[in-house]
Amino acid sequence: MQALVLTAYRQFAIEDVPTPSPGPKEVLVRVGACGICGSDVHGMDGSTGRRRPPVIMGHEAAGVVEQAGVEATCWRPGSRVTFDSTIYCGACAFCRSGRINLCDNRRVLGVSCEEYRCDGAFAEYVVVPQHILYRVPDGVSLEEAAMAEPVSVAVHAVARAGLHLNDSVVVVGAGMIGLLVVQAARAAGCGMLIAVDVDERKLELAKSMGASHGVLANENTPARVRELTEGYGAHAAFEVVGASKPLQTAIACVRKGGVVALVGNLSAQAELPLQSVVTREITLNGSCASNGEYPVCLDLMARGAIQVKPLMSAVAPLSEGPEWFQRLYAKEPGLMKVILQPDGGE
Amino acid sequence: MQALVLTAYRQFAIEDVPTPSPGPKEVLVRVGACGICGSDVHGMDGSTGRRRPPVIMGHEAAGVVEQAGVEATCWRPGSRVTFDSTIYCGACAFCRSGRINLCDNRRVLGVSCEEYRCDGAFAEYVVVPQHILYRVPDGVSLEEAAMAEPVSVAVHAVARAGLHLNDSVVVVGAGMIGLLVVQAARAAGCGMLIAVDVDERKLELAKSMGASHGVLANENTPARVRELTEGYGAHAAFEVVGASKPLQTAIACVRKGGVVALVGNLSAQAELPLQSVVTREITLNGSCASNGEYPVCLDLMARGAIQVKPLMSAVAPLSEGPEWFQRLYAKEPGLMKVILQPDGGE
Amino acid sequence: MQALVLTAYRQFAIEDVPTPSPGPKEVLVRVGACGICGSDVHGMDGSTGRRRPPVIMGHEAAGVVEQAGVEATCWRPGSRVTFDSTIYCGACAFCRSGRINLCDNRRVLGVSCEEYRCDGAFAEYVVVPQHILYRVPDGVSLEEAAMAEPVSVAVHAVARAGLHLNDSVVVVGAGMIGLLVVQAARAAGCGMLIAVDVDERKLELAKSMGASHGVLANENTPARVRELTEGYGAHAAFEVVGASKPLQTAIACVRKGGVVALVGNLSAQAELPLQSVVTREITLNGSCASNGEYPVCLDLMARGAIQVKPLMSAVAPLSEGPEWFQRLYAKEPGLMKVILQPDGGE
Amino acid sequence: MQALVLTAYRQFAIEDVPTPSPGPKEVLVRVGACGICGSDVHGMDGSTGRRRPPVIMGHEAAGVVEQAGVEATCWRPGSRVTFDSTIYCGACAFCRSGRINLCDNRRVLGVSCEEYRCDGAFAEYVVVPQHILYRVPDGVSLEEAAMAEPVSVAVHAVARAGLHLNDSVVVVGAGMIGLLVVQAARAAGCGMLIAVDVDERKLELAKSMGASHGVLANENTPARVRELTEGYGAHAAFEVVGASKPLQTAIACVRKGGVVALVGNLSAQAELPLQSVVTREITLNGSCASNGEYPVCLDLMARGAIQVKPLMSAVAPLSEGPEWFQRLYAKEPGLMKVILQPDGGE
Repeated sequence: MQALVLTAYRQFAIEDVPTPSPGPKEVLVRVGACGICGSDVHGMDGSTGRRRPPVIMGHEAAGVVEQAGVEATCWRPGSRVTFDSTIYCGACAFCRSGRINLCDNRRVLGVSCEEYRCDGAFAEYVVVPQHILYRVPDGVSLEEAAMAEPVSVAVHAVARAGLHLNDSVVVVGAGMIGLLVVQAARAAGCGMLIAVDVDERKLELAKSMGASHGVLANENTPARVRELTEGYGAHAAFEVVGASKPLQTAIACVRKGGVVALVGNLSAQAELPLQSVVTREITLNGSCASNGEYPVCLDLMARGAIQVKPLMSAVAPLSEGPEWFQRLYAKEPGLMKVILQPDGGE
Repeated sequence: MQALVLTAYRQFAIEDVPTPSPGPKEVLVRVGACGICGSDVHGMDGSTGRRRPPVIMGHEAAGVVEQAGVEATCWRPGSRVTFDSTIYCGACAFCRSGRINLCDNRRVLGVSCEEYRCDGAFAEYVVVPQHILYRVPDGVSLEEAAMAEPVSVAVHAVARAGLHLNDSVVVVGAGMIGLLVVQAARAAGCGMLIAVDVDERKLELAKSMGASHGVLANENTPARVRELTEGYGAHAAFEVVGASKPLQTAIACVRKGGVVALVGNLSAQAELPLQSVVTREITLNGSCASNGEYPVCLDLMARGAIQVKPLMSAVAPLSEGPEWFQRLYAKEPGLMKVILQPDGGE
Repeated sequence: MQALVLTAYRQFAIEDVPTPSPGPKEVLVRVGACGICGSDVHGMDGSTGRRRPPVIMGHEAAGVVEQAGVEATCWRPGSRVTFDSTIYCGACAFCRSGRINLCDNRRVLGVSCEEYRCDGAFAEYVVVPQHILYRVPDGVSLEEAAMAEPVSVAVHAVARAGLHLNDSVVVVGAGMIGLLVVQAARAAGCGMLIAVDVDERKLELAKSMGASHGVLANENTPARVRELTEGYGAHAAFEVVGASKPLQTAIACVRKGGVVALVGNLSAQAELPLQSVVTREITLNGSCASNGEYPVCLDLMARGAIQVKPLMSAVAPLSEGPEWFQRLYAKEPGLMKVILQPDGGE
Repeated sequence: MQALVLTAYRQFAIEDVPTPSPGPKEVLVRVGACGICGSDVHGMDGSTGRRRPPVIMGHEAAGVVEQAGVEATCWRPGSRVTFDSTIYCGACAFCRSGRINLCDNRRVLGVSCEEYRCDGAFAEYVVVPQHILYRVPDGVSLEEAAMAEPVSVAVHAVARAGLHLNDSVVVVGAGMIGLLVVQAARAAGCGMLIAVDVDERKLELAKSMGASHGVLANENTPARVRELTEGYGAHAAFEVVGASKPLQTAIACVRKGGVVALVGNLSAQAELPLQSVVTREITLNGSCASNGEYPVCLDLMARGAIQVKPLMSAVAPLSEGPEWFQRLYAKEPGLMKVILQPDGGE
């Protein structure tokens, strides 16, 4: 089969590699679409130690079942499917307690590191264990379904925040994940929904996706948020950047007893306004990847409650992968999600 | 009546002041014991702006009902009582939602600031609204009952952490509040209970109060905690100092999905290991004062599940108050709680 | 002032009674609209012991502040307001823990029983304590605001059920409260929303208000619900009748681990399928009145997320009150909410 | 190997059967002790359809690893182990959300029904999948470890009830599971702990295991419980019988907003005081089997917080199994747990 292989750090080639075969509990999926994730782009230069060449990356994918292993009896050829980016074991203490995203034995598709190599979906075919597959509902294209993974990150963050009906919400950082958090919070029944970013165009985008207000990120942001919320501040905030300033903003924007979901993690360390957090009893919830939210996400996408098409910058053939990786690596402004299609899609 | 008055910053005098009279819904309490709080000691030099002279400080107290206002029909003279340090309004959005410690209109006994002056209990008598009073159970002395306030801080922190039966717990900082957290966590059914401090004597004290292990605070603390917990780290940690290093330690000591209760707030800002919090889905819960936990605390004290006597450094007559305030202000080593008694106690 | 007085069981008269004056922390409200509650209709014949004549009933009301007591400084004449049906004390153990609907000292407006008499809002004026008032937002009429009370019952039930984003929901009983539960569940981000009733017209009404499906109530209902939910049953069900059959239906309609909110309480006793509840780990949540949800309700009404106009059968002058009470008492088919206006409204 | 085989309904024989061999991810355990469960006794006459002869029953067991399958690399011969009574799949929607006790594909050891036959541990050896094994801590004997299953039922019920520190608790039904609930609630930090039963000797037993009070079950029970709890009723109650009367008692014993954990399920249907549940906002939590609580239980047993020896009526050789089954089937008074030992124990 054809595959986009990271042959050396920052080097790609379309290569002809053997088509994998599914084990007894595995399924062979003909890939219809696979998105390029930020972690792929960061990792392609070796900086994370998790994309050691040669490897086929790609963990945000959807396709059609080609062949099911002998014990993978739930799936039949022809079914349209997507799958978790992570293979969880189902048996460790974390899996047993319902936190499969924290699985002690997890392996991520498209990752090659010291412990394991697990080829991903920038290829015509990929093999995945049957227990991480989900059916793609009618009306959701494979390109859209390939975005279930970033959608699930947003939906998981909203779940972690424990929103109540009509809660006022601030989203700090209106990039792709932030815009999905906006949509997920809207779907979850929030009330006032304030997007915060340094870029006014992103605020407009956020408003087109359900934000009731857009506020520029600067030293006046918390005061403006309090003004909009009868002086209280918001019930909850989402920090979707991962750095000191936006973290300080998010915390300053919530009311006493408020919740701040920590989604971004750009910086390893950040400055925390500890006294404010303690004396105002703020709760900070780290939120990582997703935890079984795929069916919910696919359903929200099927009924239009979350729309991913406006977040796709390009849907391109797999052969153009090397070029798109370079453009993303160069941080070309305005680029959001790029989807690659091995065979031109469905 | 006799009262210990802060007459100027860092200046005290025992003065004869008018005995206050209770309003219709208030109660006059003859004070039996009143503890010196760290906030009194910090505030006596004007640094917090909340102890403006002249003021009678003191909000950790217990005594006997002397006279009940005409509408304060629940209380009769002779009842042994303690009371919240904070007067909550019962009507704001925070009170209505059960978070009286975040009350928008709260006033603290013994505080004098720009907004209000509310004399406290370093005096023979104090007036408090009836709705903040609690009956002191038999077998709990008034000196002990005066410590219901710090006990409630610990019990509230444990409540905020949401411990489950047999959870492993780390307490970083074994000062007076830390030692009460140790006792509260033990009473709440935790399993392994690891105290962490730079002072070995405090670790011994912690072990005498229910800690199963004491670990010195240094760069190896997290590794030692993981070793004790089958490699996982603890389910929960309490940060009872309020500074960067102990915060980093507390976070590094919990397992994936763990909870860190933030109790200390010495430093306004602290360094947060953001990536670790996000990718391991740590929850940080600010915990401030207490929230209706007094009856629970008094009950725990009555049945010996929490013992406060070992934390009392001195029980002294009110007239010695100025001296004890100076010794505490000078940070005399080993001093924990000092209790003052207007009239020599019961 | 003019008032609709229950002069004897089942007897009404429009009488001229003294206009009440507000105490220091009370507010005099000129009533703009007051809805007739089922409890008023049931109670008018003496069967509940809580409408002892003579009494002015009415606890679902809205109006305009006429005069504020000297300490009721938050409110000014001219403000459009509604208020809780229940006066909570703010000081008992239940209020302190955020469950003001369970207040130990609560008094209900328009109730006259052995313990107290508290005249209600079927009159030109009513006096209420300031702490139960809420501002009516622009765009919500006083007739609509008078329905904040039944709306809050529905919103509270939804809060008690703890729905998660996209949960499938069944509402058993599509009467007025059931239809409000449908709207509240929709606003709260549920997914599939199945109304169940014996009356097909009510199912159509439910679908016009946000239900995705209507299913007739009979022995096949649970099978039909499972069919709609991939064989699982719904995540949550609301029982809004209060009798054995609908309770059995609600329980049979939820999946393992599901939640059943108990809202209706027509029958004192009901048959419970105990083994099914235990072995499938169902949670049943009794839900009574509301608990601070008024601001959320008014906000949802202001932004059109909950619509009450279709539930109003009539808006009539107070003088027609006796007639409407008789028609409701006679259970005239199709009658839902009847609103009375003392002076013809705004 | 020797095995106790149910050869026909109500007929047992010690037979020589082939020793099973473990599959790749399975482990062969030499059984050290296996308890007789009520479900075995009920099922032996065919009434449940889940003990179809011939079958080797037994799902409450502990032993020593004899041989590990080629992929069962976590376990080595010689390790002392116990295991879940239920084999969960780790992949269905329930397992993924942390509710392995509700697994859609679960199989119970020692059960033979229409769907499957899975021989259990009344034999010298048993094969179980590696992911349901737990290490038995030092100081816990295999007979004790065989009781981890009933202990886990109690610990799970306590977890479902969501107790807070010092909550007052009522346990209705002081049989074996009820007595374990008493111990688990005590370990979990409850305050007042009231056992309720018709049998005074069981109340004495309950008090010896941590109950602070014993109250005879009759029409005065709720009044007596209110008297003990300052008029409020308890925070939580456990119904460990599963019939109308004890259910009514449990509900009547809790305060407004209280929780009733439903553990017993003797009767398929029960009478529910619906109005009381709704107007007092009671929560009823069905609780079934256990959900990953084994490590907690074993730890509690190791540190003596839960003691199972007083609940063992007999520890007997496997060859006496038929006799003990008959005595239990005949409901011989006073019999609690009977443990069978294939080879005389460790």
